Amino acid sequence: MALPFTTQIVDIALDERSYPILIGPGLLDSPAAFDRGSASGGTSALIVTNTTVGPLYADRLARVLAQRHSQVRQLALPDGEQYKTWESLNQIFDELLGHGADRKTTLYALGGGVVGDMTGFAAACYMRGVPFVQVPTTLLAQVDSSVGGKTAINHPLGKNMVGAFYQPQAVVCDLDVLKTLPPREMSAGLAEVIKYGPIADMALFEWIEAHIDALRAGDPAALAHAVRRSCEIKAHVVGQDEREAGLRAILNFGHTFGHAVEAGMGYGAWLHGEGVGAGMVMAAELSRELGLVDAAFVDRLRRLIERAGLPVRGAVIDAADNAGRYLELMRVDKKAEGGEIRFVVIDGPGSAAVRAAPDELVRQVIDRCCAA
Amino acid sequence: MALPFTTQIVDIALDERSYPILIGPGLLDSPAAFDRGSASGGTSALIVTNTTVGPLYADRLARVLAQRHSQVRQLALPDGEQYKTWESLNQIFDELLGHGADRKTTLYALGGGVVGDMTGFAAACYMRGVPFVQVPTTLLAQVDSSVGGKTAINHPLGKNMVGAFYQPQAVVCDLDVLKTLPPREMSAGLAEVIKYGPIADMALFEWIEAHIDALRAGDPAALAHAVRRSCEIKAHVVGQDEREAGLRAILNFGHTFGHAVEAGMGYGAWLHGEGVGAGMVMAAELSRELGLVDAAFVDRLRRLIERAGLPVRGAVIDAADNAGRYLELMRVDKKAEGGEIRFVVIDGPGSAAVRAAPDELVRQVIDRCCAA
Repeated sequence: MALPFTTQIVDIALDERSYPILIGPGLLDSPAAFDRGSASGGTSALIVTNTTVGPLYADRLARVLAQRHSQVRQLALPDGEQYKTWESLNQIFDELLGHGADRKTTLYALGGGVVGDMTGFAAACYMRGVPFVQVPTTLLAQVDSSVGGKTAINHPLGKNMVGAFYQPQAVVCDLDVLKTLPPREMSAGLAEVIKYGPIADMALFEWIEAHIDALRAGDPAALAHAVRRSCEIKAHVVGQDEREAGLRAILNFGHTFGHAVEAGMGYGAWLHGEGVGAGMVMAAELSRELGLVDAAFVDRLRRLIERAGLPVRGAVIDAADNAGRYLELMRVDKKAEGGEIRFVVIDGPGSAAVRAAPDELVRQVIDRCCAA
Repeated sequence: MALPFTTQIVDIALDERSYPILIGPGLLDSPAAFDRGSASGGTSALIVTNTTVGPLYADRLARVLAQRHSQVRQLALPDGEQYKTWESLNQIFDELLGHGADRKTTLYALGGGVVGDMTGFAAACYMRGVPFVQVPTTLLAQVDSSVGGKTAINHPLGKNMVGAFYQPQAVVCDLDVLKTLPPREMSAGLAEVIKYGPIADMALFEWIEAHIDALRAGDPAALAHAVRRSCEIKAHVVGQDEREAGLRAILNFGHTFGHAVEAGMGYGAWLHGEGVGAGMVMAAELSRELGLVDAAFVDRLRRLIERAGLPVRGAVIDAADNAGRYLELMRVDKKAEGGEIRFVVIDGPGSAAVRAAPDELVRQVIDRCCAA
């Protein structure tokens, strides 16, 4: 059977770990979209989803996979970043071992970034590695988190601190599922789309400015373009630096500040994309303080983030010493080295760099950018 | 500074993941032995050990590492297979995050197989991968578990079910530490040395037969030969099949039955090497039942395992249906496929193969080989 003719394919080129990202409507009902998942010859499959997404799509996915696997089980985890923990991960292992899943069992991650990160990490660790396929159902997961092989769980002291680089067999982005996405989740996903502009592609940025209302309204053509272009940029970056030895770090623009908000407010209070939204404004302000961009650029970015329905000010996470708490949380960022925080900054529209900044300057930015 | 002139080096050839195994006396006090650990340029180090080994050697290792890392911390976990759990693993993450360890921090695993497996898995996962060095202090870890990059923790339903293939920067085997090894641990280590004979090298097997008393007595020259030859065979196998797609499985001779004993008795009741000892007899009996070896070979192997101070009969792990319980536990073995257990059998002295066997035959072997 062929793929729907509207399907677009973006390839992630990583030698023997290369895989396709399939993008288009109707993929959840297309057996051809899941050709790669059965490449291992495994007979058994487990769909890992959450209690929100599962009732909407898990049975449909199971029906399609039944043509490729003789046994297809489902596991629905609780929904939310606060559940991206060892306890949830262990539920996956319990399910797999409880049903005798072998080393050729394929895991399917059906959900947003939390489900994808946890399922990918479970696949990386179960019997030291089983195949998995990403089936992202949020815009954020389709344009960012499902692509590139970063998997992880959170630790109380830091986000994504325990994980693995582990590539899926394929990423299947059915654009139809975005129709049921709540507005807040749509906005959160747009944060990661907007991100690609300042760091890599100002033409995309201009296009988003022109189409932000269509995107928020769920216009299929606009979403198709946003997902494809985002995946292309991400594929290009990941293909050059799979394990984040250098270049790949620029994809974390806005994330250093954003992770601090997420951890500081308690996981789940802010959506990841919301933290990234406010975090990008803070990182842009820091770039301006460092003399790398002008105020007009920061304003332009802030305006687009605001139009996307995202917060443009950070949260106050500590009433007594807010900037101090941010700095404390940011020092455990994975880009930090020897206690020195390394920020992704914009050194000119469409170009990013990673560098340190004096604590005093960072404190000023935090004080100025956080809601009182 | 040079290595002690008595140092032998066995290389594990895995392209950019290649590393040396250093074997000899006095290495714990030799800064040159730890050249590889600082290749990352990281300033910080964490020695992970256990409460038995730590008091004996951790300060000495810390002194040597102080010449390479500006900060060297220590963490002593409880001693025993029953602590090879997520809880212990999380203690490592807590220690790392609590002290702001960054992505260039090097972990040093100072201890036996449990410490090595857990520390290696922690290194694989912390911030998606930090460098680590194995400093094995038991014979079992020196001849087997520290070499080859298998890392894991146990799950209540199966041994080593959650883990990663993750290679160390180096393995440093100081033979002097074997002088303080309790006799029971020495015997457990000999199980893994003996293993290499039937699967790969009957000349080694004959040599062990001639030197088993010297080995048990801790004779330095005999131990040096046993460790080096074991590492050479393991390096050869791992170099051909890092991720156990095929050949590498032969290194699990005796482990399918052995893991069932370990899990069935409760982790820590039998030492891993003791399970492997009895397990090799059972696997050899199965090989004979399958017509692959004769009774004389099985007797010869049994006699050597007995002389090594190891059990040659399996434990009764279920009074009602002992063989049934063995089969149940063995079905979650990582080599199992589609519910079919795959055994490492000897198909002629010095040669191993992986194959299935009828349940009835396996039951007979278990019934015959288990102590009443």
